[in-house]
Amino acid sequence: MRQSQLFTKTRREAPKDEVAKNAQLLIRAGYIYKEMAGVYAYLPLGLRVLNKIIGVIREEMNAIGGQEVTLTALQQKETWEPTDQWDDAKVDVWFKTQLKNGTELGLSVTHEAALTKLMKDFISSYRNLPAYVYQFQTKFRNEVRAKSGIMRSREFIMKDLYSFSKNPAEHEAFYEKAKQAYVRIFDRLGLGGTTYLTFASGGMFSKFSHEFQTVTDAGEDLIYVHEGKRIAVNKEVLNDEVLKELGVKREELVEKKAVEVGNIFSLGTRFSDALGLTYKDAEGKPQATVMGSYGIGPGRVMGTIVETRSDDKGIIWPESIAPFAVHLIALFDEQGTVKKAADDLYEKLTKQGIEVLYDDRDAGAGEKFGDSDLIGIPKRYIVSEKTLAKGEIEVKDRLTGKVEMIAFL
Amino acid sequence: MRQSQLFTKTRREAPKDEVAKNAQLLIRAGYIYKEMAGVYAYLPLGLRVLNKIIGVIREEMNAIGGQEVTLTALQQKETWEPTDQWDDAKVDVWFKTQLKNGTELGLSVTHEAALTKLMKDFISSYRNLPAYVYQFQTKFRNEVRAKSGIMRSREFIMKDLYSFSKNPAEHEAFYEKAKQAYVRIFDRLGLGGTTYLTFASGGMFSKFSHEFQTVTDAGEDLIYVHEGKRIAVNKEVLNDEVLKELGVKREELVEKKAVEVGNIFSLGTRFSDALGLTYKDAEGKPQATVMGSYGIGPGRVMGTIVETRSDDKGIIWPESIAPFAVHLIALFDEQGTVKKAADDLYEKLTKQGIEVLYDDRDAGAGEKFGDSDLIGIPKRYIVSEKTLAKGEIEVKDRLTGKVEMIAFL
Repeated sequence: MRQSQLFTKTRREAPKDEVAKNAQLLIRAGYIYKEMAGVYAYLPLGLRVLNKIIGVIREEMNAIGGQEVTLTALQQKETWEPTDQWDDAKVDVWFKTQLKNGTELGLSVTHEAALTKLMKDFISSYRNLPAYVYQFQTKFRNEVRAKSGIMRSREFIMKDLYSFSKNPAEHEAFYEKAKQAYVRIFDRLGLGGTTYLTFASGGMFSKFSHEFQTVTDAGEDLIYVHEGKRIAVNKEVLNDEVLKELGVKREELVEKKAVEVGNIFSLGTRFSDALGLTYKDAEGKPQATVMGSYGIGPGRVMGTIVETRSDDKGIIWPESIAPFAVHLIALFDEQGTVKKAADDLYEKLTKQGIEVLYDDRDAGAGEKFGDSDLIGIPKRYIVSEKTLAKGEIEVKDRLTGKVEMIAFL
Repeated sequence: MRQSQLFTKTRREAPKDEVAKNAQLLIRAGYIYKEMAGVYAYLPLGLRVLNKIIGVIREEMNAIGGQEVTLTALQQKETWEPTDQWDDAKVDVWFKTQLKNGTELGLSVTHEAALTKLMKDFISSYRNLPAYVYQFQTKFRNEVRAKSGIMRSREFIMKDLYSFSKNPAEHEAFYEKAKQAYVRIFDRLGLGGTTYLTFASGGMFSKFSHEFQTVTDAGEDLIYVHEGKRIAVNKEVLNDEVLKELGVKREELVEKKAVEVGNIFSLGTRFSDALGLTYKDAEGKPQATVMGSYGIGPGRVMGTIVETRSDDKGIIWPESIAPFAVHLIALFDEQGTVKKAADDLYEKLTKQGIEVLYDDRDAGAGEKFGDSDLIGIPKRYIVSEKTLAKGEIEVKDRLTGKVEMIAFL
């Protein structure tokens, strides 16, 4: 894309009321726009990144047998009452609204109950199980405070997958597959090195649930990391019994601030019992369906990447989700020679299928380099009178700062 | 995809309270799920169709210079008051809600005002114009009645593009391009033959706006079609002056029921004046930005296609947006010969990049054919003992019913 055509511009300052680094950088670089506290629009560059994150997650969900749907934001009281989740005192982040006839509705905060109800139309026999259903869908959460940028929003896209299994053993086998898929996802998103499989309380139906926690000072959680085993425990399960079971000693653990970028947990039969999702086994006997829940917030992941991969000049995207692979910067001369060469190079790279943001604006080198550092595309190609004289392109790596000259393509 | 893995099943009956043909067929075939009146979830087959419709629209919007964003559903009063659109008496389809601190919020019914406000961050000079910005985003409309299935929903995805131009001439040139893009979109979606460019009232800033109306008995609008010119006028502009201007005679017009699948209109400076979106011209003088609005509802389009392309057996998708290109149906024999041949064929077709739904279920021919007619994939490949004996595949066209035998691949 030609940067002269991009309608967004960088800005020197973020809004004064924006305290989160991720939102400050993303707003300054033109990735997102703050509609109100905790509510952000995604601009062209931001939507490209968000969609790439979604693409990685989708591939991994499809690879473990997930089938994609889109459920609805508008939710009826009847769906949520059987699991005692309608009352604002029990679920304290509801946005409620109503139909013209006064019927009260809620905006989805999650979808376990809604999907369980839906699946009653399709699951009646053991032959219909297992089933793995997921979506990328907008959740609404009426957070009292929303000061963490896109890491904690009042309106955000969530990938939520729910598993429906015949029995605990079938559930556990899928749960393990999902856990491995999550490890692959965070590796591919450039968060592998800083993200820990974290043991958390399992609730009624299993000993543990699992969080994926990325270490960052911007995190709202405290975790206790065992670097040797690449695992962590959260506060609620930091006790002698759990430490013994995990084979780690208290003195080996290091307390770190972290943000929960994903979580997986066993729901057991809580939702299927409450909403009546049973199936008939091979003998015709009714059985409860065993469920699990598997969440990742692509926006939160994007915010976390900015928090953990940025410097005082701006963002440093990993290649897998950068809005463009190459930032081509032309430092124009008066004769138009550089412009012509850079135009040609842009066409050539684009034809090769390389995603290029081409800074073809009438602007000085300082502005172009500053904007490029802020926007954070992994590779910068610089074409100038000087590089052209040698028949070369200067290539700079945004992460390492390493510069090398390559032959003009 | 193997149909034995697909978690949805067809059903004989639609919900009793569902009166719209599009929703009846889409629910029976497993494309959508009715959460409540006017609120539908998209199941795997339905999401495939919806995403293909979105893909076609996106290509055409990018081709005319559109840049994609995603704005937010949660909206503040302050954004809507300057254009007098906050009051429920003025805009009667609001869903309102509130933050924990009591601040009133609305759920987006449209985005002219929100985007105009956003663009103030990016438009200050004539150099920043024109700009064309669009999104596929969920709208909420608190309709009193919602009986038209996915043709009129309370929660639905809308493609809305807004144009920002320096002056009326620049606006008109883009408006014309957008009109042509819409013609291409409906052609590609299989609605070309039944969709009419329909002249409607232009409001304050232009003589006409333009609706794209598809003729169907399920439509809520009445239009007056001139078949020779492939245009129509709606009721509000059916007068002698307009007929003269369009060069048509009243007696040449035929009244038809139709549904509005798209609309484009000039907003003039209504929003930019009210919200203060001005730019400085080459002389440094402030000027008002001229705007236009261009909408299509992909879900409404999908519903309209079902209304206009279905028979008593089910849906008949056009190739461009069918969930799969081929429905491969294997009529198993006891020896497993057909299964093996069909498995191989499925692998082969899939490797060639052909999207195949493979009915590999243990079910009889009647059930498989009935489901296939209902689901409505354009080409049906049948493999049975009989066809294998001849080294052939029976290919049936869902639209024409024409059957031909081709050599086994």
